[in-house]
Amino acid sequence: MNADYALLTDLYQLTMAQGYWDCGKAEEEACFHMYFRDYPFKGGFAIAAGMQQLAEIIDDYRFSESDVAYLATLQAPGGGPLFSGDFLEGLRDFRLTLDIDAVPEGTVVFPHEPLVRVTGPIDQCQLLETTLLNCVNFQTLIATKAARVCLAAKGAPVAEFGLRRAQGLGGVWASRAAVVGGCASTSNVLAGKLFDIPVSGTHAHSWVMAFDSELEAFRAYAREFPRNCVLLVDTYDVEQGLKNAITVGLEMKYRGEHLAAVRIDSGDLSWLSKMARRMLDEAGLTDTGIVLSNDLDEYTIKSILDEGAPVTSWGVGTKLATAYEQPTLGGVFKLSAVRQKGQAQWTRRLKISETAAKLTTPGVLDVRRYYHDSGRLAGDMVFDVTSGVDGREVIIDPADDLRQKKLSGLQFETLLKPLARNGKSVLDGLGTSALAAQARAKEGLACLDESQLRMLNPHTYPVGLDCKLFEVRRSLVSELRDVVP
Amino acid sequence: MNADYALLTDLYQLTMAQGYWDCGKAEEEACFHMYFRDYPFKGGFAIAAGMQQLAEIIDDYRFSESDVAYLATLQAPGGGPLFSGDFLEGLRDFRLTLDIDAVPEGTVVFPHEPLVRVTGPIDQCQLLETTLLNCVNFQTLIATKAARVCLAAKGAPVAEFGLRRAQGLGGVWASRAAVVGGCASTSNVLAGKLFDIPVSGTHAHSWVMAFDSELEAFRAYAREFPRNCVLLVDTYDVEQGLKNAITVGLEMKYRGEHLAAVRIDSGDLSWLSKMARRMLDEAGLTDTGIVLSNDLDEYTIKSILDEGAPVTSWGVGTKLATAYEQPTLGGVFKLSAVRQKGQAQWTRRLKISETAAKLTTPGVLDVRRYYHDSGRLAGDMVFDVTSGVDGREVIIDPADDLRQKKLSGLQFETLLKPLARNGKSVLDGLGTSALAAQARAKEGLACLDESQLRMLNPHTYPVGLDCKLFEVRRSLVSELRDVVP
Repeated sequence: MNADYALLTDLYQLTMAQGYWDCGKAEEEACFHMYFRDYPFKGGFAIAAGMQQLAEIIDDYRFSESDVAYLATLQAPGGGPLFSGDFLEGLRDFRLTLDIDAVPEGTVVFPHEPLVRVTGPIDQCQLLETTLLNCVNFQTLIATKAARVCLAAKGAPVAEFGLRRAQGLGGVWASRAAVVGGCASTSNVLAGKLFDIPVSGTHAHSWVMAFDSELEAFRAYAREFPRNCVLLVDTYDVEQGLKNAITVGLEMKYRGEHLAAVRIDSGDLSWLSKMARRMLDEAGLTDTGIVLSNDLDEYTIKSILDEGAPVTSWGVGTKLATAYEQPTLGGVFKLSAVRQKGQAQWTRRLKISETAAKLTTPGVLDVRRYYHDSGRLAGDMVFDVTSGVDGREVIIDPADDLRQKKLSGLQFETLLKPLARNGKSVLDGLGTSALAAQARAKEGLACLDESQLRMLNPHTYPVGLDCKLFEVRRSLVSELRDVVP
Repeated sequence: MNADYALLTDLYQLTMAQGYWDCGKAEEEACFHMYFRDYPFKGGFAIAAGMQQLAEIIDDYRFSESDVAYLATLQAPGGGPLFSGDFLEGLRDFRLTLDIDAVPEGTVVFPHEPLVRVTGPIDQCQLLETTLLNCVNFQTLIATKAARVCLAAKGAPVAEFGLRRAQGLGGVWASRAAVVGGCASTSNVLAGKLFDIPVSGTHAHSWVMAFDSELEAFRAYAREFPRNCVLLVDTYDVEQGLKNAITVGLEMKYRGEHLAAVRIDSGDLSWLSKMARRMLDEAGLTDTGIVLSNDLDEYTIKSILDEGAPVTSWGVGTKLATAYEQPTLGGVFKLSAVRQKGQAQWTRRLKISETAAKLTTPGVLDVRRYYHDSGRLAGDMVFDVTSGVDGREVIIDPADDLRQKKLSGLQFETLLKPLARNGKSVLDGLGTSALAAQARAKEGLACLDESQLRMLNPHTYPVGLDCKLFEVRRSLVSELRDVVP
């Protein structure tokens, strides 16, 4: 995936960059935060992902000769070249020098807290905005969906196999993010190669149709893959398919081999899986598992398990790989402070907007996560690192100042960790393989209360602004509303 | 986007390929069709797209040394290497030799008719399946969504700018497909470069926030881009923003320049656009346009226009680039016939399934599209090219044999055109640039009745099986249900 990441951006980032350069603002530093506003899937948590790819993008970031040549061809709508020769020349040597801090992949996160903080020359922050959002938004979305699906599966392995219905090459990151969120494997071979994640797969209906009979097809597959044999039994008729699979399973047993599982991909999965279990057990194939697939998500898995279906593992495709129910996270990247290069002092910035929910939080932010003695999460505090946390350690809901929570006396950790310094990634020490991130996500979810893991209408986790930051934001809004009546 | 397309597939395609090789079936030829079962977005049509990328994938298709090395590392769940040494060796020299026929990009298409037909060695058809589905499913989905959005916009240009919320690198194909479906431009610079499609963009809220005042920010942008000046007026307060934009617009006018437009990205877009038009007109800036954006889709655009909002152009992001309402097409790729290599005669294949809608159509298929003398589409007939069309020229709804339509006497064309022969693309002559496909889509949509373009509950277009094919399918189902009781 040698994508040309410098151009994987919105045109306006480039027009603004030229503008910043020409009016001397490239010497100004800015602070931006990436965060999302609403819980995905109406759930109670999200799993952060995409930081490893972001680090790789940062390290490879440059404008190639062909990029510059392409930009030189662009015309302004009013005529003439869109970009100046000086700007295009400058892009040739352009290197990132910015700093990035982010939550490690697999961290449990919540709305309104920064997942990523970028500080550095304002033009660089802007040029990176679209790429960063694309990368972190999507992977966080899919990791979250996968975590929900895996929670519903109650420990039975879930294989992701949505590539054929995925959104183009987005499917490659989707498979990785699915593993971060908890999937045991993916069918996506390219993702397996690129990200060192487990791959799995056996055969399709077409294998069965390519033979003159289902029994012949099953026998051929078992001969070929005696140690990876899952037979798909619903090409023609599930009951007959099970009979054929059992015939082959017994033949395998006789040869000292093992029919790993049967897969059912259509019909009433709950009812059929019970029939399959009964038939397999009666034939003595008690250690042959049952894999279910067909348009599954966390809701159908829960419903099938609620009926007591004897499922060994799950295959989940489309609805996971596209986050069908809500195919975007909607995370944003907002300017919150500026300063002249070399100066220590930041000037806070705020966007008001006609839409109340779009109000931003000013400052240079981080998150303190407080823990109860039991290890359970107690609450998250968004605070400004330049002014520090108010001694009272109280968080205030930014949308309702009467919702407050005192967190003093509890243990805490700070969530943002260095991801890049001076334009180069510094992630090495953090262990950001997909499987390491998966372990972190599992640990994090175990620290949530069950009520926060509920699929629908979960208990809302307390995230608020440090009371000092709350006051600063409030007075800045009043000020701006006075200034701009 | 030098993706490693040979591995962009499901693992089971590779296990099946090894199986086909080892049991001599790689000498068998198969015929597969890609089609979808349901109208996307509950609409009345779809716009085919993705064929150009498919052609490029075919031409680049090979397993690299590192691909083979990766596959050699994979272990079977039961222990030992998953793939045999012979198979891996064979992959090194593996070249596609199959033939592909497809509808040209931009063709108006309907459920249950083949968009792509692949014939050739069965292992090759399978290896290509996932990639083909990923490519054609997603681009067809987005082209269709874009066509709906552009129909709602009634001719006003629509710019696609969803990259930041898109599904990872899927956003690159999304931007191209959006142009195929009718968008005038995209913000996605990489898509602009790769696919030669128009790009557009001006500035963001952060530009305004980076200056000490909005007026200063607007002036700076107008100085920098006098021929590409669209001012975003809702960073703090739309009315004040409009006043500042008008100040700058008048300054530009005085200098002989032109404020192209103002953009509103929050609040009540209909109400605010009317206020903006009034204020601009009163200031004499009658040729300054109004661009609206903020979570738009075909429904919100229709509603805003229904209220008489004076909109010059639209920016549509998330809901277009992710097809938010239905983020996958759900197209399938089904085996329908097999034959021994070198033989002329095909044996038809059919999948029954527990789910009635998953019943497939056997044969080697193509589509005849019939036209009324007016140029309007009359109906589409799916027929088997090996047996030809029944002289009665009657189509039968496969789900309801009492729904029939006689099409005899009407003009027709055949939809599938050569896309690849002997594993190499032969698209050159077809003009498959995104803009050529856009023109084809516009022509095609103009041949539909208005009732078929309706956003919700449209008139269903008649697509059926040639009556001879219908009978063949029916008797094959009976046969299979007898054979496999």
